[in-house]
Amino acid sequence: LIHHGLDVGGTKVLGVAVDPAEPTVVLAEERIPTPSGSDGLLGALADLAGRLDDRAGTAGAVGVGVPGLVDHQGVLHTGPHLPGIRGLPIADLLADRLGRPVAVDNDANCHALAEARVGAARGARDALVVTFGTGIGAGIILRGSLLEGAAGFAGEAGHMVVDPLGPPCPCGRRGCWERLASGSGLSRLARDAAYAGRIDDVVALAGGDPEAVRGEHVTEAARAGSDGALEVIDELARWIARGLANLANVLDPGVIVLGGGLIGAADLLLERVRDAFAVRVIAGELRPEIPIVAAALGERAGAIGAALLLDQAGQPT
Amino acid sequence: LIHHGLDVGGTKVLGVAVDPAEPTVVLAEERIPTPSGSDGLLGALADLAGRLDDRAGTAGAVGVGVPGLVDHQGVLHTGPHLPGIRGLPIADLLADRLGRPVAVDNDANCHALAEARVGAARGARDALVVTFGTGIGAGIILRGSLLEGAAGFAGEAGHMVVDPLGPPCPCGRRGCWERLASGSGLSRLARDAAYAGRIDDVVALAGGDPEAVRGEHVTEAARAGSDGALEVIDELARWIARGLANLANVLDPGVIVLGGGLIGAADLLLERVRDAFAVRVIAGELRPEIPIVAAALGERAGAIGAALLLDQAGQPT
Repeated sequence: LIHHGLDVGGTKVLGVAVDPAEPTVVLAEERIPTPSGSDGLLGALADLAGRLDDRAGTAGAVGVGVPGLVDHQGVLHTGPHLPGIRGLPIADLLADRLGRPVAVDNDANCHALAEARVGAARGARDALVVTFGTGIGAGIILRGSLLEGAAGFAGEAGHMVVDPLGPPCPCGRRGCWERLASGSGLSRLARDAAYAGRIDDVVALAGGDPEAVRGEHVTEAARAGSDGALEVIDELARWIARGLANLANVLDPGVIVLGGGLIGAADLLLERVRDAFAVRVIAGELRPEIPIVAAALGERAGAIGAALLLDQAGQPT
Repeated sequence: LIHHGLDVGGTKVLGVAVDPAEPTVVLAEERIPTPSGSDGLLGALADLAGRLDDRAGTAGAVGVGVPGLVDHQGVLHTGPHLPGIRGLPIADLLADRLGRPVAVDNDANCHALAEARVGAARGARDALVVTFGTGIGAGIILRGSLLEGAAGFAGEAGHMVVDPLGPPCPCGRRGCWERLASGSGLSRLARDAAYAGRIDDVVALAGGDPEAVRGEHVTEAARAGSDGALEVIDELARWIARGLANLANVLDPGVIVLGGGLIGAADLLLERVRDAFAVRVIAGELRPEIPIVAAALGERAGAIGAALLLDQAGQPT
């Protein structure tokens, strides 16, 4: 029995074919650019499923992870990287087109499911998995299964407001956690430090223009021991920890898993986040320590998790 | 079959005896002052259970709600109104003393359980119940049962930091939600407005001293149409809504129930909180509306919920 997991990103759709009993072993892998529009997206998903059928030699049930708000019926209501798509019943339309079971969920939920079942949170009953990329996605595992919420929209932790006077967010609010603690948050902290003259060495790395300073310049300089760059990393770690502490106070997870592109800098961030978290979570000195660990599954986590949206028999769970 | 529910507050312990099949009908009720110290607390709980036995004519299994962090074994780790009590195994010690089953949980969880089973959230699969008193307590119902968390400490939403530069909290952090959106938050907003000269009419109500302004003065003046007082209420409603939106983004509840002393001003607050919430929750215009309603069970909610910590046979759930 084979399942296909399709992970829709802002620039590409990654598809894997896996045996759900051993989903970290990728039997086939395909990727195509993310098209625009509803018809384009559905066509690309069907195309990718067909290619995986050919590669795997069998038609697998299909799980799809998409960046956006997905309800219990697999309808994508809106997504930040999918302009113009509103209220698209992906699960029903794709199941009709392919003639097989299809399950659809939010991409961060797929990440979380994969890390909880076969990744860094394996064995944990209650886990919080947070993905730090351009924005922030979160998936919450409670009592062993995904928290979907009443409408299916749970886990939108990136839009938790952590500073009411903070930077504006495309969502219309200010000070959303993902404006402060994500990859774009790091860029913003770095530019602020550059203009304030606190990281002249990093600005030099970026060719001398404060506006050209990126997260990679900061992490490179921090690894080389730049005090200014390390202060920016400290600041980022505090913002990450503030949001994690808020979530831990509410959810009390058994483990917190950090994934996404930003956690490529786990060597710089992980210990700092742990320290900043320990003094921010409520009763940190009295409670069992909540381990904070890096994700284990890498860039395929979302696709593997999408394949796991289907139960062992291939039906949507 | 009778259950006793005991609700430990900062000043009194309220006990009720109920039939768990019809727990809103209080068969007997007793209250005693909250004593200090571990021995005092255990003695008071045993005494109250004995009095309820006498009044109800039968020895009921005992559920206890306490303000503080309670783990899965019914150990109270720490509580803001119970100085000097640390790591007290209330469930085991009280069960030994009384010779019957005892269940112990956080008081806000008991409130939430009561509202979810027989109150304003009756029938909801996923509900968020927030109690606004001097501080803020929250209980989260997911898939029909209480979210306890890995250590048992879930629901500490009062210490979600919503403004990193906000007022200091006794917990050691700044800008905890309960410093801004609770009864004491209202007092603080009112005093700030008083010193700023924005509510001279309210200050007059309080005898002319800005320091003497209390929440009751603001609500009285607001009901009489004072513009300044209504602005303070608007500000409070925004702080309440900010925290509720953060929680709703993460949990996606089917209903939000507001209880506690502050919600005695539901006539002033409820509509304002709904309006402020609608523009703050993510995708408010696309998602099913999340109803925000006042609690139904009043000051006995915590004791009734404590009685419901036991299953129908009287065993801790």
